[in-house]
Amino acid sequence: MDLKETRELLEKIKNGNLTVDEGIKKLQDLPFKDLGYAKVDNHRELRVGYPEVIYCAGKTPEQVSGIVSFMLTKGCNILGTRATEEVFQAVRDVCPEAEYSREAKVITIKNKDMKTSDTYIAVVTAGTSDIPVAEEAAITAEIFGTKVERIYDVGVAGIHRLLDRLDVIREAKVIIVAAGMEGALASVVGGLVDKPVIGVPTSVGYGASFGGVSALLTMLNSCASGVSVVNIDNGFGAGYLASMINRL
Amino acid sequence: MDLKETRELLEKIKNGNLTVDEGIKKLQDLPFKDLGYAKVDNHRELRVGYPEVIYCAGKTPEQVSGIVSFMLTKGCNILGTRATEEVFQAVRDVCPEAEYSREAKVITIKNKDMKTSDTYIAVVTAGTSDIPVAEEAAITAEIFGTKVERIYDVGVAGIHRLLDRLDVIREAKVIIVAAGMEGALASVVGGLVDKPVIGVPTSVGYGASFGGVSALLTMLNSCASGVSVVNIDNGFGAGYLASMINRL
Amino acid sequence: MDLKETRELLEKIKNGNLTVDEGIKKLQDLPFKDLGYAKVDNHRELRVGYPEVIYCAGKTPEQVSGIVSFMLTKGCNILGTRATEEVFQAVRDVCPEAEYSREAKVITIKNKDMKTSDTYIAVVTAGTSDIPVAEEAAITAEIFGTKVERIYDVGVAGIHRLLDRLDVIREAKVIIVAAGMEGALASVVGGLVDKPVIGVPTSVGYGASFGGVSALLTMLNSCASGVSVVNIDNGFGAGYLASMINRL
Amino acid sequence: MDLKETRELLEKIKNGNLTVDEGIKKLQDLPFKDLGYAKVDNHRELRVGYPEVIYCAGKTPEQVSGIVSFMLTKGCNILGTRATEEVFQAVRDVCPEAEYSREAKVITIKNKDMKTSDTYIAVVTAGTSDIPVAEEAAITAEIFGTKVERIYDVGVAGIHRLLDRLDVIREAKVIIVAAGMEGALASVVGGLVDKPVIGVPTSVGYGASFGGVSALLTMLNSCASGVSVVNIDNGFGAGYLASMINRL
Amino acid sequence: MDLKETRELLEKIKNGNLTVDEGIKKLQDLPFKDLGYAKVDNHRELRVGYPEVIYCAGKTPEQVSGIVSFMLTKGCNILGTRATEEVFQAVRDVCPEAEYSREAKVITIKNKDMKTSDTYIAVVTAGTSDIPVAEEAAITAEIFGTKVERIYDVGVAGIHRLLDRLDVIREAKVIIVAAGMEGALASVVGGLVDKPVIGVPTSVGYGASFGGVSALLTMLNSCASGVSVVNIDNGFGAGYLASMINRL
Amino acid sequence: MDLKETRELLEKIKNGNLTVDEGIKKLQDLPFKDLGYAKVDNHRELRVGYPEVIYCAGKTPEQVSGIVSFMLTKGCNILGTRATEEVFQAVRDVCPEAEYSREAKVITIKNKDMKTSDTYIAVVTAGTSDIPVAEEAAITAEIFGTKVERIYDVGVAGIHRLLDRLDVIREAKVIIVAAGMEGALASVVGGLVDKPVIGVPTSVGYGASFGGVSALLTMLNSCASGVSVVNIDNGFGAGYLASMINRL
Amino acid sequence: MDLKETRELLEKIKNGNLTVDEGIKKLQDLPFKDLGYAKVDNHRELRVGYPEVIYCAGKTPEQVSGIVSFMLTKGCNILGTRATEEVFQAVRDVCPEAEYSREAKVITIKNKDMKTSDTYIAVVTAGTSDIPVAEEAAITAEIFGTKVERIYDVGVAGIHRLLDRLDVIREAKVIIVAAGMEGALASVVGGLVDKPVIGVPTSVGYGASFGGVSALLTMLNSCASGVSVVNIDNGFGAGYLASMINRL
Amino acid sequence: MDLKETRELLEKIKNGNLTVDEGIKKLQDLPFKDLGYAKVDNHRELRVGYPEVIYCAGKTPEQVSGIVSFMLTKGCNILGTRATEEVFQAVRDVCPEAEYSREAKVITIKNKDMKTSDTYIAVVTAGTSDIPVAEEAAITAEIFGTKVERIYDVGVAGIHRLLDRLDVIREAKVIIVAAGMEGALASVVGGLVDKPVIGVPTSVGYGASFGGVSALLTMLNSCASGVSVVNIDNGFGAGYLASMINRL
Repeated sequence: MDLKETRELLEKIKNGNLTVDEGIKKLQDLPFKDLGYAKVDNHRELRVGYPEVIYCAGKTPEQVSGIVSFMLTKGCNILGTRATEEVFQAVRDVCPEAEYSREAKVITIKNKDMKTSDTYIAVVTAGTSDIPVAEEAAITAEIFGTKVERIYDVGVAGIHRLLDRLDVIREAKVIIVAAGMEGALASVVGGLVDKPVIGVPTSVGYGASFGGVSALLTMLNSCASGVSVVNIDNGFGAGYLASMINRL
Repeated sequence: MDLKETRELLEKIKNGNLTVDEGIKKLQDLPFKDLGYAKVDNHRELRVGYPEVIYCAGKTPEQVSGIVSFMLTKGCNILGTRATEEVFQAVRDVCPEAEYSREAKVITIKNKDMKTSDTYIAVVTAGTSDIPVAEEAAITAEIFGTKVERIYDVGVAGIHRLLDRLDVIREAKVIIVAAGMEGALASVVGGLVDKPVIGVPTSVGYGASFGGVSALLTMLNSCASGVSVVNIDNGFGAGYLASMINRL
Repeated sequence: MDLKETRELLEKIKNGNLTVDEGIKKLQDLPFKDLGYAKVDNHRELRVGYPEVIYCAGKTPEQVSGIVSFMLTKGCNILGTRATEEVFQAVRDVCPEAEYSREAKVITIKNKDMKTSDTYIAVVTAGTSDIPVAEEAAITAEIFGTKVERIYDVGVAGIHRLLDRLDVIREAKVIIVAAGMEGALASVVGGLVDKPVIGVPTSVGYGASFGGVSALLTMLNSCASGVSVVNIDNGFGAGYLASMINRL
Repeated sequence: MDLKETRELLEKIKNGNLTVDEGIKKLQDLPFKDLGYAKVDNHRELRVGYPEVIYCAGKTPEQVSGIVSFMLTKGCNILGTRATEEVFQAVRDVCPEAEYSREAKVITIKNKDMKTSDTYIAVVTAGTSDIPVAEEAAITAEIFGTKVERIYDVGVAGIHRLLDRLDVIREAKVIIVAAGMEGALASVVGGLVDKPVIGVPTSVGYGASFGGVSALLTMLNSCASGVSVVNIDNGFGAGYLASMINRL
Repeated sequence: MDLKETRELLEKIKNGNLTVDEGIKKLQDLPFKDLGYAKVDNHRELRVGYPEVIYCAGKTPEQVSGIVSFMLTKGCNILGTRATEEVFQAVRDVCPEAEYSREAKVITIKNKDMKTSDTYIAVVTAGTSDIPVAEEAAITAEIFGTKVERIYDVGVAGIHRLLDRLDVIREAKVIIVAAGMEGALASVVGGLVDKPVIGVPTSVGYGASFGGVSALLTMLNSCASGVSVVNIDNGFGAGYLASMINRL
Repeated sequence: MDLKETRELLEKIKNGNLTVDEGIKKLQDLPFKDLGYAKVDNHRELRVGYPEVIYCAGKTPEQVSGIVSFMLTKGCNILGTRATEEVFQAVRDVCPEAEYSREAKVITIKNKDMKTSDTYIAVVTAGTSDIPVAEEAAITAEIFGTKVERIYDVGVAGIHRLLDRLDVIREAKVIIVAAGMEGALASVVGGLVDKPVIGVPTSVGYGASFGGVSALLTMLNSCASGVSVVNIDNGFGAGYLASMINRL
Repeated sequence: MDLKETRELLEKIKNGNLTVDEGIKKLQDLPFKDLGYAKVDNHRELRVGYPEVIYCAGKTPEQVSGIVSFMLTKGCNILGTRATEEVFQAVRDVCPEAEYSREAKVITIKNKDMKTSDTYIAVVTAGTSDIPVAEEAAITAEIFGTKVERIYDVGVAGIHRLLDRLDVIREAKVIIVAAGMEGALASVVGGLVDKPVIGVPTSVGYGASFGGVSALLTMLNSCASGVSVVNIDNGFGAGYLASMINRL
Repeated sequence: MDLKETRELLEKIKNGNLTVDEGIKKLQDLPFKDLGYAKVDNHRELRVGYPEVIYCAGKTPEQVSGIVSFMLTKGCNILGTRATEEVFQAVRDVCPEAEYSREAKVITIKNKDMKTSDTYIAVVTAGTSDIPVAEEAAITAEIFGTKVERIYDVGVAGIHRLLDRLDVIREAKVIIVAAGMEGALASVVGGLVDKPVIGVPTSVGYGASFGGVSALLTMLNSCASGVSVVNIDNGFGAGYLASMINRL
């Protein structure tokens, strides 16, 4: 809304050609509202039934349960990531129906039913140690209404295990690959499918795996097209992004 | 198909209970065919009109023009990335209609018309120095049939420039953000839109930008959900992935 | 000892008003006073009411309480940073009026009133996990007599929160931005204000945040002018520097 | 401006209690204008006579001279950093009075006189090889109207050279220290003065200096309070920030 | 086997020119079988009596004992690496004859006798602190039927200790060198023998040993030919590879 | 000089068949022959017909041709690695039959025929850009008398290409895998074969490949057993080691 | 065994004063003595009264007390570094006169008096947190018979403290500087004295001190001549080297 | 100016033998002489005949020849390090007797004879490529009057070459070891001698040698006592330090 438009609007109000309420409505659309309030509003429309997300790391049990209590008043679904057992106990005190995945360290509270997608995403791991990260991704995707197929422990050291499940992977709309150590699985999957692959390097490994850096670099340098990467151990980010793409 | 099934199949052929053609069809489904030949075949069906891609870096002009010559016999569109001027001259000798973007160092040869997508992707840069990488992404996307909106030089040092173009960015199906130096733009865009954001860290910068590492880390650690990352300066990878998602 | 004082000293010796031994004693102090004592003296003048600072990390509770006991005899205000609960207990034994911020791990002892500045500094954080570092900065600034405005949890993932408080930030004389993960907030603030911004990368994050390195690099590479950086988690340094600039 | 205030404003216009022009003026202050246009405006007021800055690295001579031509029509002073000799030739073609520092690789065009500050900043280097970075800082500060004292080649390997100039350094309002190799000078200066010190690590050195990383880490870890750091070789950033603080 | 060959094969079977068994044999050679089943089969022939390996890190005691229980039904030997005392207790509950090396953190279960090789490998350490990694290598090699000579604590700080045992080292078919700190022993041994040397950098050391990185780089840069390297602390990998080479 | 020889020497002295001076001379050679000369001697016996190796990097053409001239007098075969075209010209001046691989930058001079091994090693590359490193390995192995099978451009982005050649790879006694970018091929090959795999990370790639570091880490962290690694681009080292193992 | 001794031995055999078997026994020790024993012997002569050194890290209390028990039978002085309280208790059980520095984590056992050097070394620290490393150096030097002057807490943040003690430092024959954080003290001391300076970076600090890497790089890049560096926290190494130089 | 001189000065003033103005002039020089000038003076006494040193890197030929011209007026010997051929030409224009080592890139000008030390230092290299760095060290030492023994190309890949020269090395007062690649030679020498060893990591190598970092880490982690390290390729620093120790 430039100077000329603003002047015209105010002239109309002055002249009674526009009611105050109509003027307010137009002015509310000003760029800032597009940024702030409007953004939230739009999101609210798009996100009906979507969970609020709490990143619990670095918050006390009391802080998390306080946030949950507040959110419960809004009736929304809730996802709490990186939650310790202790945090979960505090949450259960204010919300007995809260559920907890010890493996993924994820709390879920379902207050509303959410339609599950027709298409699905595949969550693939190289080894069993990558499963906690994969479960964070899978549970995140599920509470966002995404159907998930889990294909675990199909790393490149025994590639026939992967090939055995290739048809299920190929039918997915997006594929999440969680792998530590050398992280080669993302490239191999990327070379075998024609779908977006989201690599999640995990901190699984020792020595020169450098807490996931080796897998991260492998995935970033993937010579297979269609592979992008999120932060080390960021199962939530992968699950959220996969849901977003699956929903498109 | 295990030993028993294979024996039964061959017994049926021997006994005339199955024709040779039926037997071939069943055997063609063997896992390996699913992996190798079949994969190529499927791709061929899916990729009608899609360009073949040549990564020109580390290849001599003769090698690239030789590959192009061969590909031209198949009638497909061709995309050559990281091509020097010299490589382009060699390609133009065998294909006068080849085009070249000096900025993006990309050669394109269009032999077939390709339907352009209805939805579009946005390619956003922080500064003018990021444009070559952005153009590699944009031209890649375009030859894959993807409609592209370019929004350049809207970095966070003057955030009003970004906000000014926010509506165009929000309507995109996927957003590519190319940024060097501190790479903060990917996070900021990720916080303002509800679409997948593909971060392309660029090697633009000096000192502690470490050839793109600073921007890469920024993007990997993005606190905005929906952001994933490809390799430093990997415009092609971002353009390819964005096209893949746009097409879903 | 300036030219005039030296001349007077020599005149006194010449005139017999000062013995050679007394002259030697005064002159021997020279080289040092110029560098050492004099420096302390100047500081003393400038710093009336200023706190003495104890960096408690790596000191035993006994050592810290011993230092505090000695300082109390000088009547000055005292700031103890990186103090554990155990250290605080030992300090409280020798100084019952000592106060402790569990969040910032900072001990403060106020023996003298100090004039609070008219202008203020803003202490801004990206997330709630950055608050301990921000509080170290804020409490440091306050005990140095600086007025502080706290603006917490306004990270770039929801930029409207920042814009909402922009007027308060813009009126500050100096702005401290504490941010972990991708640390983009310092750049964004730097692009929105025309005041010195002191970035404090925090070790908040996981994976490729590398204990604050990602945020550190982001801030060092800021494309917004007016941003400088202190060490990871160095809230004290930022608070001290901001006070120093605010006081200019 | 919240809902209630907006309604009141529009009611006043409707009722003729406020003219359209007055209403426009108030509405222009809306958050977004504060972000974008208003920011520019405020800056314009504050920055009368301030130079426009062009970062020439990665721009062609034609691009830079084009930008300069446009800026000249606005009559402002111009600062071009990281400019090659070739870029300067192109600029001189469109602006014969442009000046060039070969050492600092900086172009300056002064169309307007600018008041020089009463207080001054000190620009200090450890060695002679750090002078180009220091000159970038000094020339930047000068075109922003800041008085500059240069104190070069006073590194810690011969600390008496530094002590010799200490009085000049102590009288400065801000001190920029440019140092490569081990970068210890910033800490030593920080320990001797009671003013903000801006450390500029330079890429001077070899071997384990890692292109300035060693000096960068030294400065970040400075045990002297009041030291903050900008990017390696970022003389412009230091000069700009020092001017900003000097002006407060 | 392409379409034409498959057709001919089936025609032959139909016509009785090939028996069903002959046909099965040919079809079993199909690429995929070579990949999956056939690989296992070949391995089974080659690996009669070879142990199954469980990497215990990141598995619960219950998980490990469950896997062991299952493997015991197959009668094979079992090697469990990176097993804690607690894991061992759980394994001993299901298999009382399991043995445990506290030093190497390795569980071994021998159900079948395995022929020990005539040739031997040498396992050499620089210091006593490298012995746990060396023992992981040695025990791994032994349960794979490889004869092992242990030569411990012969680091380069007292090179006469190494020279004293040089004849034993020279007679080995493969030499494993486990060394931390500066890791120079692998190069020195590589310069004294004409046999493959497998370097295992260990995380022994402090400061700039960076958890084994220093030793890793030393070994990778060895100027002696015939040296290759496995991951830091990867005794298992070295023992396995040495056994594989010894067996050739 | 073993026990028997020493006894004979002393008997001769006792019996006057050897003077004390002659005995001293022989004994003085002792410590060395055990370590130095004897090593060379043994090597000479073992290495009949083996080439002398010159690492040409950092040597002038004159130096290399001088060394070659000297070696030619001994009649041995010669391998010169990392030789520029200019070095080759200087070598050809003193030895017209010298041959040069422009791709591998390797000079070979064959003065003696050498028996080629019955078993062979496989040299495998991920892409075409890895071929120079692979050729350095292959030519090295060949001049050491090792039969070589080259399998190039079979990277994981199109894994069917690898599977297609798997039988040739499996029959090799040792496999060298040269791969840059993400370097995943070494792991994949290691998972498919039961032979020692020598990974050679190459510096092929850009951005976060960090000159081969990404591929190096991938290979070090390989979850497939039997993989060891040599330095980035160290084709010679891999070829030498593979020959050594093949010869066992 | 030097020339003269060898000649005597052979003369004795020639003359029948020594049997061949006796001669063999003596000569068999030869290769070794030249490298090993002889080295020990020389050392023994040089090192009369010198302590044996035990690096206790990674050894159990039993192992250390076992080694001490053995050494006590030889009557030598003993230095145990990196010893925990628990290790000291075990040592005291076998040697009640053992002493322990809790600060330096060093055990000392003095069985013989050792002449203290006339010249002295200075051990200087930047802060109080560097004292444990400095004490390891000082106690090491003292048990090697070196006179030590301790000058602690004279870091560059208050350089007058250093200048105050400069005369004592300048009179030392060697100076050890232990400093963490930015480690600038080594350069400053190196610029003020004309004696060898041994820098010991300490792991004192936080954030971008990276466990001592910042101080290490500072010291390596020192622009003052005469400074060399040992590993991070390696007080023993510095004390040993300083004693060696002091003794020259 | 020591105590005695100060007393005499004051007595003279008291007695009227010196005017107050003369006294002021002398005393004004005080603070400096204690720190600065006095240091130079002392050095002049100690360093009669010692060369002035110019670090030529980053200086223009004109700058270097200008400095040389000035130094020539003082009659001192001159050492110019890191000098290009072009710099040498400029120096020869002002000083025809200047000499140049192309290998070491060192200019030497000898105006005064200097007594050569009785004891010598040994300069040892691992390979031929390390010789330029070693020559910088050796020529530096020689112009400082130190006798030098060069022992080149005795790396650990053929340790007998080192043992062959061990007696010469052991007789040296200090040993400089220049080595690139894995840098193991410093440790091996350190284990064989009882003298200070100064390690100079060189940037010789490729791949994971990371421009000398691998050798640097090796030397820092040396398990042999008595080894300290200077910066990568810092031959001058090693030569200077060795001379300083040799002179003690």
